[in-house]
Amino acid sequence: MRQSTLFTKTLKNPPADEISLNSRLLIRGGFIDKTMAGVYTFLPLGWRVLRKIEQIIREEMDAIGGREVLMPSLSPRWPWETTGRLEEVDVLFAVSGANEASRTKNSSEYILNSTHEEIVTPLVQKYISGYKDLPTAVYQIQTKFRNEPRPKSGLLRGREFRMKDLYSFHKDEEDLRRFYDLSKEAYWKICERLDIKEDTYIVLASGGDFTKDYSHEFQTKCETGEDLIFRDPVSGICYNREIAPVKAPAVQSFEDKKELQKVHTPGLKTVDQLVEFLGGSTKKTVKTLLYQNNDSKVIAVALRGDRQIDEEKLTKAAGENGLELAGPELIKEKTGADVGYAGLIGLPDDIDVYLDDSLQGLVNFEMGGNETDYHYTNVNFGRDIPEPDKFYDLKTAEAGDICPESGKEYETFKASEVGNIFPLNIKFSKSFNYYYNDENGEKKIVYMGSYGFGPSRVMGVLAEKFSDDRGLVWPEQVAPFKVHLLQLPDKTGEAKEKSEELYKKLVQKGVEVLYDDRPDIQAGEKFADADLIGCPYRVVVSSRTIKEGKAEVKKRGEKEAEMVEVEDLIKNS
Amino acid sequence: MRQSTLFTKTLKNPPADEISLNSRLLIRGGFIDKTMAGVYTFLPLGWRVLRKIEQIIREEMDAIGGREVLMPSLSPRWPWETTGRLEEVDVLFAVSGANEASRTKNSSEYILNSTHEEIVTPLVQKYISGYKDLPTAVYQIQTKFRNEPRPKSGLLRGREFRMKDLYSFHKDEEDLRRFYDLSKEAYWKICERLDIKEDTYIVLASGGDFTKDYSHEFQTKCETGEDLIFRDPVSGICYNREIAPVKAPAVQSFEDKKELQKVHTPGLKTVDQLVEFLGGSTKKTVKTLLYQNNDSKVIAVALRGDRQIDEEKLTKAAGENGLELAGPELIKEKTGADVGYAGLIGLPDDIDVYLDDSLQGLVNFEMGGNETDYHYTNVNFGRDIPEPDKFYDLKTAEAGDICPESGKEYETFKASEVGNIFPLNIKFSKSFNYYYNDENGEKKIVYMGSYGFGPSRVMGVLAEKFSDDRGLVWPEQVAPFKVHLLQLPDKTGEAKEKSEELYKKLVQKGVEVLYDDRPDIQAGEKFADADLIGCPYRVVVSSRTIKEGKAEVKKRGEKEAEMVEVEDLIKNS
Repeated sequence: MRQSTLFTKTLKNPPADEISLNSRLLIRGGFIDKTMAGVYTFLPLGWRVLRKIEQIIREEMDAIGGREVLMPSLSPRWPWETTGRLEEVDVLFAVSGANEASRTKNSSEYILNSTHEEIVTPLVQKYISGYKDLPTAVYQIQTKFRNEPRPKSGLLRGREFRMKDLYSFHKDEEDLRRFYDLSKEAYWKICERLDIKEDTYIVLASGGDFTKDYSHEFQTKCETGEDLIFRDPVSGICYNREIAPVKAPAVQSFEDKKELQKVHTPGLKTVDQLVEFLGGSTKKTVKTLLYQNNDSKVIAVALRGDRQIDEEKLTKAAGENGLELAGPELIKEKTGADVGYAGLIGLPDDIDVYLDDSLQGLVNFEMGGNETDYHYTNVNFGRDIPEPDKFYDLKTAEAGDICPESGKEYETFKASEVGNIFPLNIKFSKSFNYYYNDENGEKKIVYMGSYGFGPSRVMGVLAEKFSDDRGLVWPEQVAPFKVHLLQLPDKTGEAKEKSEELYKKLVQKGVEVLYDDRPDIQAGEKFADADLIGCPYRVVVSSRTIKEGKAEVKKRGEKEAEMVEVEDLIKNS
Repeated sequence: MRQSTLFTKTLKNPPADEISLNSRLLIRGGFIDKTMAGVYTFLPLGWRVLRKIEQIIREEMDAIGGREVLMPSLSPRWPWETTGRLEEVDVLFAVSGANEASRTKNSSEYILNSTHEEIVTPLVQKYISGYKDLPTAVYQIQTKFRNEPRPKSGLLRGREFRMKDLYSFHKDEEDLRRFYDLSKEAYWKICERLDIKEDTYIVLASGGDFTKDYSHEFQTKCETGEDLIFRDPVSGICYNREIAPVKAPAVQSFEDKKELQKVHTPGLKTVDQLVEFLGGSTKKTVKTLLYQNNDSKVIAVALRGDRQIDEEKLTKAAGENGLELAGPELIKEKTGADVGYAGLIGLPDDIDVYLDDSLQGLVNFEMGGNETDYHYTNVNFGRDIPEPDKFYDLKTAEAGDICPESGKEYETFKASEVGNIFPLNIKFSKSFNYYYNDENGEKKIVYMGSYGFGPSRVMGVLAEKFSDDRGLVWPEQVAPFKVHLLQLPDKTGEAKEKSEELYKKLVQKGVEVLYDDRPDIQAGEKFADADLIGCPYRVVVSSRTIKEGKAEVKKRGEKEAEMVEVEDLIKNS
């Protein structure tokens, strides 16, 4: 393609409000344009990259027997109502007439699909009802929509983005597991073909309310990734932050136990206020939180002042459903104090207490006084409150935490989730009453899995990983063009002639060439553009190279250029 | 592809509410599935057809220098406000959170683009500001959304559909015209490659408020097409119904003028009521309509009772803007009568009268009496009302109408608009203040054109055109597979063995084969399926053909099959 006919140009400065590395690089290189936060146009160069990524994904999905379809973005409301997700999915968009004329013609509201379980399950149900036709796998590569509140990570999180989503259907859980493992292998092949395998990890994540099993995320290390991954250095097992089991590193203390004191702390309700008033450290304070369940049963939870409660972990530990923070009235009733002064000393006996392991080993700590405007200081286990039988893991994981399994500190790193696989089991077949007839003519429920891989997100990840301070350094298999041919200005017109000739010969040979044929651009700017755009091979034709009957070839990312006979260049391209 | 692994099946009966030929054929063959009215999933077979169509369109757009991008479906509101089309486009959709949780996270409303002038103009404006970079052309092949009230033509009109839209940018109108003609040629090439050129017509249509020029539609003859085309048999020029200039065929009358009578017609306000009461024909009644313009100036329009007024034609003829039907009070003031009794006898002098040419030659006709509950009968020009200087064309075109240019009756036919090209001129560049610097450094406004071609609609047209009572008959270049290989059941297993062998050899050779390897399906059903699906070549391997060392080859659409040596078949595929 002639660069003179490429309507985009490289930009000196990306928009100031673009802060993510990937979007800054891609906007500067002329790969994408920002329409609004989280919504981008793929420009000619970027669209070429995206299509190559999508083709790699397509080939690997075809290889495991996936059948490609294109499902619609619009959906009626009923399937979303059927699964209950119309109210549950907090990024779901709805669609209706934009103006009065449009609403008058048709006042209906539709759903803009953020995922396609609600479409694909009734679809496959129409065709597949017998055991002989199972398993089957259906996929698409399509645009998805999510009502993200403040997307700011470029292509890593969009309100509108490209997604490959595959759904598999099975006669039992065992067959689902077989295909699930197959899809893992396919994903590893995709990662390998995209050159991100080394930096990608399978990460255990929550199975949601679909399953007690984990789901699996393919997380690629990436500085602006939005996920924090916890890797046990001994087993190599990786956890998503949300479910990582952690032990807080113990706070060592050699102090003797001091005398318990009740201190007047008027108006000091937060840990930070208290620490500022009393001096010391948040690590010597204890937060006590009261929760109530659906039956108004109240439990107390305590953890170190510097840690955050994880309500999912609490729910699992306490075995209670529908836990929510107690309100001011209930707190007053149970502790005798206003919000902000709850503690463990003198709580009513009917309240079960759950202690996070961040409290283990604490000496002379501070805690609410169960009396408005009062805290205790120098609280100690075994004296002021009973030494518990058990400490729990009730906290959000933090870098520096210990893996309980290995006893070693987790390695933590930021990553972007390029893919995920999900054992849906019978969640959706149950909603849609999707049964099949087995070998004996008996009705059995269908097992399902879903498998996502994000082409546009992975394009953002590739941009971040394969770049340097001068621009992008695309791997050849996804580069917009293999060769960036630069015609440098010369007075005789000979460089133009020779480069035109070379361009035509390379194109004839089927080589993908971006040909910088722009007449009025200086060599320095052409070199800078080539670095920004990042094609694997830069080939320069100038009066200097012509003298030797050669062209100068440089691999992007390498420093040294090489003079190559033009004939050899054509032959070896 | 093995048919046993294709999750779809042919259907005996499409859904009863699918009435269009194209969707019935495509649903029966397993090409599409209906998600809701006007919204379809493209199933594996259909997706293959659609992608082939899109690739043909892509190649022709690339050939005229179009640069492919992918613009987003979501848009902020501001560009649509800038052009004023947020309120004007009566099929526009808006998008916002679907539930409370989603709206709480982000309460913004976005637009779901039905077309992309609002996105592409500011986009190109960012990159192209000098004459040297003009002209440029940008296109995409993408999903579009329209809030259609009652879509019922299958793929011919969707709420969600595929569209190729190209936008061109020029330094003046002349260059726009040059590219406009080029794009016409490209569209003819597409039609030729899709085998619809012979049945496709360039049809003049309104340029909207963008231009006084016509826009051009590529209309393909098609029984369920939603447009009625008027073709002058002499010049060959085709008009969209909305703008076709027509003369009504004259009503011949050899009657003598009868005596004018005023008849009591209590409560009879419509032409049909009047005709029923008086006897005779709607063709002998005259409708009189009163319009007022923005300045409350009133005009009267009269046309024959069987014809409908075309307000756009009236607006052009009267040279008035903002014409709308007068209300009851104004009618009473001007005619002295209630709505339904206006006529031409005795109207105030300040009312200009416009007569449609359907009135020309009428004798002894009926007309409102300008008095509530009264009509005149036996009205005649030159006696009761003055013979006008001029008759106008103020009516909606109907089959049977005359072309004023040639004086011949129009040929009319139903068609589907597969493409359209539009001289936008400066409509959008004006809205977005898009100027460029010319050779002399002067600011000049950019000229634009837009060029649509509908891949999914044309797929519906192809289905209607290339089918018979047994199913689809795809042209090879868009067929889902070139060869449909049927393995017929036999007892020895030899047919299976030979057809497996043949399948593998054909695939190895790069031939696209749908291989009906289903073990428990009888020959008759396999033949019926092959006819429904409509691949160009049916190849049968059975115990009978094996005996001769051959396979049976039949072209879809032809009656006679041919026995072919297997080796020859492979060689010639």
